[in-house]
Amino acid sequence: MKVLGNIRDVQQHVKQVKKEGRTVGFVPTMGYLHEGHLKLIETARSENDIVILSIFVNPLQFGAGEDLDTYPRDEERDRNLAEEHGVDVLFLPTTAMMYPEPMSIQLSVTKRTDVLCGKSRPGHFDGVAAVLTKLFNIVMPDQAYFGMKDAQQVAVVDALINDFNYDIQLVPVATVREEDGLAKSSRNVHLTAGERDEAPAIQESLQAGRQMVEDGERSPARIIESVTKFLESRTRGRIDYIELLSYPELTSVDVIDRPVILAAAVFYEKARLIDNVVFDRNGKITTG
Amino acid sequence: MKVLGNIRDVQQHVKQVKKEGRTVGFVPTMGYLHEGHLKLIETARSENDIVILSIFVNPLQFGAGEDLDTYPRDEERDRNLAEEHGVDVLFLPTTAMMYPEPMSIQLSVTKRTDVLCGKSRPGHFDGVAAVLTKLFNIVMPDQAYFGMKDAQQVAVVDALINDFNYDIQLVPVATVREEDGLAKSSRNVHLTAGERDEAPAIQESLQAGRQMVEDGERSPARIIESVTKFLESRTRGRIDYIELLSYPELTSVDVIDRPVILAAAVFYEKARLIDNVVFDRNGKITTG
Repeated sequence: MKVLGNIRDVQQHVKQVKKEGRTVGFVPTMGYLHEGHLKLIETARSENDIVILSIFVNPLQFGAGEDLDTYPRDEERDRNLAEEHGVDVLFLPTTAMMYPEPMSIQLSVTKRTDVLCGKSRPGHFDGVAAVLTKLFNIVMPDQAYFGMKDAQQVAVVDALINDFNYDIQLVPVATVREEDGLAKSSRNVHLTAGERDEAPAIQESLQAGRQMVEDGERSPARIIESVTKFLESRTRGRIDYIELLSYPELTSVDVIDRPVILAAAVFYEKARLIDNVVFDRNGKITTG
Repeated sequence: MKVLGNIRDVQQHVKQVKKEGRTVGFVPTMGYLHEGHLKLIETARSENDIVILSIFVNPLQFGAGEDLDTYPRDEERDRNLAEEHGVDVLFLPTTAMMYPEPMSIQLSVTKRTDVLCGKSRPGHFDGVAAVLTKLFNIVMPDQAYFGMKDAQQVAVVDALINDFNYDIQLVPVATVREEDGLAKSSRNVHLTAGERDEAPAIQESLQAGRQMVEDGERSPARIIESVTKFLESRTRGRIDYIELLSYPELTSVDVIDRPVILAAAVFYEKARLIDNVVFDRNGKITTG
């Protein structure tokens, strides 16, 4: 595995790879790799000649009061995991290299952001779009891999690729789950034993909502009402939101007549968990 | 010459070209080609294996009340000129193809724009940045060619390439001039005979300012004062601005201790002419 810290080196390497007619799969991360990331790497590995993994904790996507300084890092463990999972190039840029000075050109994501988690993280997706614009131009991948756990991020990447005409295939990868259905998350360790027992109810409630659509229901309001009741009856966690929106546009719908996302966020004592399910107008799961 | 109207077709073609190890030079234009454009094409032709010319009148860079609807077009003449000058691929996208819907991601150029012509064209360079971001991702050039006549545009493209880490060499090309030094412009035809006689004074005045630096002057204020007097004595045109700024940062300078641009805009009866000269701290011309 090549470990590169220099933007030019990555670009030179990728140019050579492309001259050889080989394809590049890209997994952008902020490091502290968990099973979700490894699934992205494995998927990229199976679909491309070359896999490039980037690890960069992007300051632009952290808001004031968010956990930039305490964001967990373990470079040595990440390197080993990357190598074990067949990564060809590990790109580890510094902040000084990515942002040698404040950018002259600001990106504002004006759609798909004022819903779900975006509501409480103003500017977050602007920072995501900025770093991905840079990373896409550095890595020049054929395919880029993102986890459906953060479905809103996938929707924003979809907008970025379409708006800017990137010749990149976005590959959303299904959320990795525990045996009982709880979405894997580094935050799950913060759950008490009781909370951990209840947390699978989040995905269960979303699946129950999806099942309603499969059974003929087309009203978002009735589905959200039902999912809310279900979830409240199964956990003491405080519901932050349960939303049903078109996907990937993330606009509100009066009737389910197109692909949608049903998503929830729940506060526990020391962790806020999110999960979602994406399905078509007939309740058939389409992504994730 | 290949004439392509489809974004995908251009991307497929360029991918193939790159696999063959050939280099791509790109000349983005709004058409109605004149000698300035032809010089860009010729320069690109001499420095690359493949030359791609785009013609697209970009609505995003026209402000309210600007001349989008009356912007001159002559596709047949442009096609012939492109073919005669050795263009390999002429890319002619429609507005519907470039902007199938309003973009979800807005670009704001926050530096290099509140000076020179940018002052009177709010949002203009945001539109330029948006279309170039798209075109760069479609054409994926090794080198991109821009005329120094619009030095501020060159400065903004420089910022775009640096900020977004495009692996593209920006090639500024010297302004094409009439024998008496007047910068070529499609707007020159709107000058009266008397105005046409006087107009070379614009470049003469800027060169006189540059000569002051070569002779040891380092004060922008004294140079601007002198250039203004010179120009006022040589033409009845009304001066819009004469500015001396760092280049390519386009920030004001107290003393000339770095590369700078000395630029002017002059209103005549039916035309507003612009011109500039870029030189180093010793008055030596560096670009353009």
